[in-house]
Amino acid sequence: MTRDLIAPSILSADFARLGEEVDQVLAAGADIVHFDVMDNHYVPNLTIGPLVCEALRKHGVEAPIDVHLMVKPVDRIIPDFAAAGATYITFHPEASEHIDRSLQLIRDQGCKSGLVFNPATPLSYLDYVMDKVDMVLLMSVNPGFGGQSFIPATLDKLREVRRRIDASGRDIRLEVDGGVKVDNIATIKAAGADTFVSGSGVFGKGRAEDPNRYDTIIGQMREALAGAGC
Amino acid sequence: MTRDLIAPSILSADFARLGEEVDQVLAAGADIVHFDVMDNHYVPNLTIGPLVCEALRKHGVEAPIDVHLMVKPVDRIIPDFAAAGATYITFHPEASEHIDRSLQLIRDQGCKSGLVFNPATPLSYLDYVMDKVDMVLLMSVNPGFGGQSFIPATLDKLREVRRRIDASGRDIRLEVDGGVKVDNIATIKAAGADTFVSGSGVFGKGRAEDPNRYDTIIGQMREALAGAGC
Amino acid sequence: MTRDLIAPSILSADFARLGEEVDQVLAAGADIVHFDVMDNHYVPNLTIGPLVCEALRKHGVEAPIDVHLMVKPVDRIIPDFAAAGATYITFHPEASEHIDRSLQLIRDQGCKSGLVFNPATPLSYLDYVMDKVDMVLLMSVNPGFGGQSFIPATLDKLREVRRRIDASGRDIRLEVDGGVKVDNIATIKAAGADTFVSGSGVFGKGRAEDPNRYDTIIGQMREALAGAGC
Amino acid sequence: MTRDLIAPSILSADFARLGEEVDQVLAAGADIVHFDVMDNHYVPNLTIGPLVCEALRKHGVEAPIDVHLMVKPVDRIIPDFAAAGATYITFHPEASEHIDRSLQLIRDQGCKSGLVFNPATPLSYLDYVMDKVDMVLLMSVNPGFGGQSFIPATLDKLREVRRRIDASGRDIRLEVDGGVKVDNIATIKAAGADTFVSGSGVFGKGRAEDPNRYDTIIGQMREALAGAGC
Amino acid sequence: MTRDLIAPSILSADFARLGEEVDQVLAAGADIVHFDVMDNHYVPNLTIGPLVCEALRKHGVEAPIDVHLMVKPVDRIIPDFAAAGATYITFHPEASEHIDRSLQLIRDQGCKSGLVFNPATPLSYLDYVMDKVDMVLLMSVNPGFGGQSFIPATLDKLREVRRRIDASGRDIRLEVDGGVKVDNIATIKAAGADTFVSGSGVFGKGRAEDPNRYDTIIGQMREALAGAGC
Amino acid sequence: MTRDLIAPSILSADFARLGEEVDQVLAAGADIVHFDVMDNHYVPNLTIGPLVCEALRKHGVEAPIDVHLMVKPVDRIIPDFAAAGATYITFHPEASEHIDRSLQLIRDQGCKSGLVFNPATPLSYLDYVMDKVDMVLLMSVNPGFGGQSFIPATLDKLREVRRRIDASGRDIRLEVDGGVKVDNIATIKAAGADTFVSGSGVFGKGRAEDPNRYDTIIGQMREALAGAGC
Repeated sequence: MTRDLIAPSILSADFARLGEEVDQVLAAGADIVHFDVMDNHYVPNLTIGPLVCEALRKHGVEAPIDVHLMVKPVDRIIPDFAAAGATYITFHPEASEHIDRSLQLIRDQGCKSGLVFNPATPLSYLDYVMDKVDMVLLMSVNPGFGGQSFIPATLDKLREVRRRIDASGRDIRLEVDGGVKVDNIATIKAAGADTFVSGSGVFGKGRAEDPNRYDTIIGQMREALAGAGC
Repeated sequence: MTRDLIAPSILSADFARLGEEVDQVLAAGADIVHFDVMDNHYVPNLTIGPLVCEALRKHGVEAPIDVHLMVKPVDRIIPDFAAAGATYITFHPEASEHIDRSLQLIRDQGCKSGLVFNPATPLSYLDYVMDKVDMVLLMSVNPGFGGQSFIPATLDKLREVRRRIDASGRDIRLEVDGGVKVDNIATIKAAGADTFVSGSGVFGKGRAEDPNRYDTIIGQMREALAGAGC
Repeated sequence: MTRDLIAPSILSADFARLGEEVDQVLAAGADIVHFDVMDNHYVPNLTIGPLVCEALRKHGVEAPIDVHLMVKPVDRIIPDFAAAGATYITFHPEASEHIDRSLQLIRDQGCKSGLVFNPATPLSYLDYVMDKVDMVLLMSVNPGFGGQSFIPATLDKLREVRRRIDASGRDIRLEVDGGVKVDNIATIKAAGADTFVSGSGVFGKGRAEDPNRYDTIIGQMREALAGAGC
Repeated sequence: MTRDLIAPSILSADFARLGEEVDQVLAAGADIVHFDVMDNHYVPNLTIGPLVCEALRKHGVEAPIDVHLMVKPVDRIIPDFAAAGATYITFHPEASEHIDRSLQLIRDQGCKSGLVFNPATPLSYLDYVMDKVDMVLLMSVNPGFGGQSFIPATLDKLREVRRRIDASGRDIRLEVDGGVKVDNIATIKAAGADTFVSGSGVFGKGRAEDPNRYDTIIGQMREALAGAGC
Repeated sequence: MTRDLIAPSILSADFARLGEEVDQVLAAGADIVHFDVMDNHYVPNLTIGPLVCEALRKHGVEAPIDVHLMVKPVDRIIPDFAAAGATYITFHPEASEHIDRSLQLIRDQGCKSGLVFNPATPLSYLDYVMDKVDMVLLMSVNPGFGGQSFIPATLDKLREVRRRIDASGRDIRLEVDGGVKVDNIATIKAAGADTFVSGSGVFGKGRAEDPNRYDTIIGQMREALAGAGC
Repeated sequence: MTRDLIAPSILSADFARLGEEVDQVLAAGADIVHFDVMDNHYVPNLTIGPLVCEALRKHGVEAPIDVHLMVKPVDRIIPDFAAAGATYITFHPEASEHIDRSLQLIRDQGCKSGLVFNPATPLSYLDYVMDKVDMVLLMSVNPGFGGQSFIPATLDKLREVRRRIDASGRDIRLEVDGGVKVDNIATIKAAGADTFVSGSGVFGKGRAEDPNRYDTIIGQMREALAGAGC
């Protein structure tokens, strides 16, 4: 059975001491570092690029780094992230003229590849690439903005992707990003997800008061996941 | 007489512990934090955005932060950087359809405004905006790439901008960025610059061996500047 | 049972006395003012923007104004049309990177939202947004040009959308635009449409000769609709 | 001696009864109908296109219509405006890859051609086309927004263009647009302008109270112009 | 029964003596001249345009010329290729905002129209245009690059398109392009294709040694096709 | 003294037997092969790319090939043309965000670099790159269309560039392209040009009747050049 993975999004971490933040959240039990890249074109925000990914590797981070490209186009920057130490590189199908080629480029650079679906994006983009993806990421909020709640229609979409993955017989991660919290993570798992991005859900405001906050939150998530039927 | 300002570019710092790096370089005598924003469109690289700027302010950085936008277009992201604590915001005239409006937007948001000139960009863009700029930044390398040397033709261009600034009678910083080192900073000052960006020149590789490296380098730059005729 | 709505497109009206034209067509029994916005990018024509919508409201028009955005991108102009008094705002899924977000933005601004489908656009864009649309508009000609005839394949597409709307159990208008005339409106209704845009079909050339032309045409349309099985 | 021309911008008129508005302002002594076209790309607004221009001609307007394209690119729409009855068509040099060709296209279509300069745009774009322009339009505010004041640096720019026009010995209109009012029109004329766009300056809010408002305002402008040295 | 057509791609021919090359390959039994147009935007390469097509017609080529547009957008260049003698013009659905209109434009210009599907492009673009296409072209490699191998997933996609074509009852060519060789052409035919593009497969390196190479290769392909069940 | 160079544009040659055409025009005394690359974006036409350049080299052409890029952007395709055997690569300053970098890229690839000026493009783009260009090309017609006549204002512009070249003391070719014929080539040379592109002027329609046409025309041009004062 596939292990559930918790992937804190560093966009909610403190960038002044990012290495330390990432160390602590991994020590608290997180599995993957989720890395949100925005270019002020595909989404109206600009965040962090390959240099920051590389700094984490140099700092000693060994966990998988899961780079979600909210950029358009994608091909030019893929090799930069591969060189900077990315493990997964995922992109939106609308952001590449040549989806098959971009997926292949990611694998040629030694990374795992994936497609990301906006809430309204149809799943037909998966029809002919199930053998080229290592991850499918469903956005359960609209990317590029903070503070949104989980869009309920994502649950049906998760079930449909889970069905496609199982039918393929392939080893493909099904990740969900947006509004994932302790109190809905079990429902999300039950719909088929196995990888859970959480930004403010993990790196919250409460850390000053509670130095064990990361352990607490991730512990609660693990517990909720353990209780979820699947 | 205007004080010469040294502005280390944090693009060469260690992003895993950026707050500490910036604290140290300021303690070593740097005046301004130079902040290079790239969007993978105007230049083929993507670096850091408003969240990182905001993190420095929250970390306690009080020095001016000098944001150089290598993005296109510029208007949407200007208020984000103003809200994130930028002091200066400069942009390339080719990157805005409405240069006067963008300059005014920067000031309306409470920041100081400036134009950046690529090595080949003609100075005619300054003809009708000398009353709208607080800084002119001349690139002495092509932006978006590391490891280039100072382009000598910049010296003549500096002299011409210095002439325009003096003729205007206004208080406008003349900054230079690209290949500025201890051994050419005096010549650059002599050509008219008063603000000096240095990336790898400051945040070099030698710090592991020499814990006082920032002090050493910045001290040498100050010394060279002091000796320069102007 | 849903009332059929007739929506004359003001693109065929006389722009020199638009207020009067709209008053007369509403007095003649039209239900909705259809407002076609083109930006010379998404389609090769430029028509009318928010100022004209606002002028109709100031003139006293109280009927719903149904704004069809043939522009790309759409997010920046949506609040302008909301402020100008739009009732419905619809856009093409190809014209927004973030369809769910744009639909939500329309509703957040207090308007009703919708998606428009070009003749060849697949319906898969509806898969995950049935709870976010108040209207589906099927183009039965290619937008941006006048003088085209109704594309017959639209009838099957109407039937399929009708099936999706009924399955959703939601209150969603199904509008059709392009080549709708007195002699085919019943067939179009029978295929599932309930809202009928007509441009030159209503605002025709014959008005100089026949001052009751609007009443005549709209009366004939009503009659045809009444006779249509559904 | 060149006659001064007053060019009310219809963007400030009532679009619900545009024909009547234009008739009245011409009857009150206006010389030219200024027609601002925005495409939501070159400027963040969308206004009116060729159909509205054509409606004015059909309505009986015989005065010159002076079309200011705030659109990018420009070549596709130029023939549409020529066919719709435009007299002048002016565009921004930044909005065409092939300025000489666009100017020639305007003349080939039987219209008069011109270039528009944003407040910060250098005049070097005029260097090799003085024989291809019938009008130079200087923006004294940033185009695309209302409610701005006249930018004083425009006066020097007007003087420089006047010098270039006189040196060419050609019959070229020098138009100014933005913040032109009764109280500064004489100064603007003294700097070299001979054609004066005024939007809210003419089509103001006061008309309900004062049915002769257009006559009053245009009369005051004429008077101020008559008193201006040139 | 439909005749199988062999369509050598002239991109692999010798451009210094293109007329002769095309004459020889047609003499050797090829049916169609496949003409790959790249614009350095839709794909990262630039090849040949209408002038080259026209030169082939003037040279005396009478075989169908099958123009595959790897350009974006497509509408402006379609009439140029029609005038230059193209028989088929096909384009990618992602490359036109208005697919139905572009298909119609091709037919209005007297050519046969088609859609091209990248390896990952879903077939839903065919849902409402089966009456507007004369050809469906499936890419079995990613367009714009040479030296790739046939993507096996294309076989399933061919079967699905064949099913759709047969269901439509229309006369629509099903073409495949990418990695087609003597040793897989029978399998490809068996999956439903009836038109076979081959570039380096035909115009190979061996011609200097073997003056009958074109005859040999095309003969072998015919033989393989003849043996294929369908 | 610099030798005058005649550069026939192969855009007017017969593409069905391009190698032979180029051989003959070189044998007739032409010095350089002028190669016009259009991408259907920077200009509304698409011509020929690197593959055609490479074919000429493989065919045995040893003369300099002078590639004029009418494409935007330029950086991606520069290495392709260098690899294909280009001698000169020139581009339009408006077509690169980073002019200095593009010029340097051309030289880094082992080619000679140049800037091309449209008829209305100001010369200020030359201000800071005289040490980076090996050629300045002035367009004397608008690029992208055939059949235009020489724009007379080019003569003054030629004189100004000649002055700048002479002042630089550098070895920079001054090329002119557009409407150059036997009867104006002497005047053009007198204004400062030393390299003369001619398309239909050389590859005319008359060749069928006159097998020595290339020799005749080029001979006449040489004669006219010899008689020109400079």
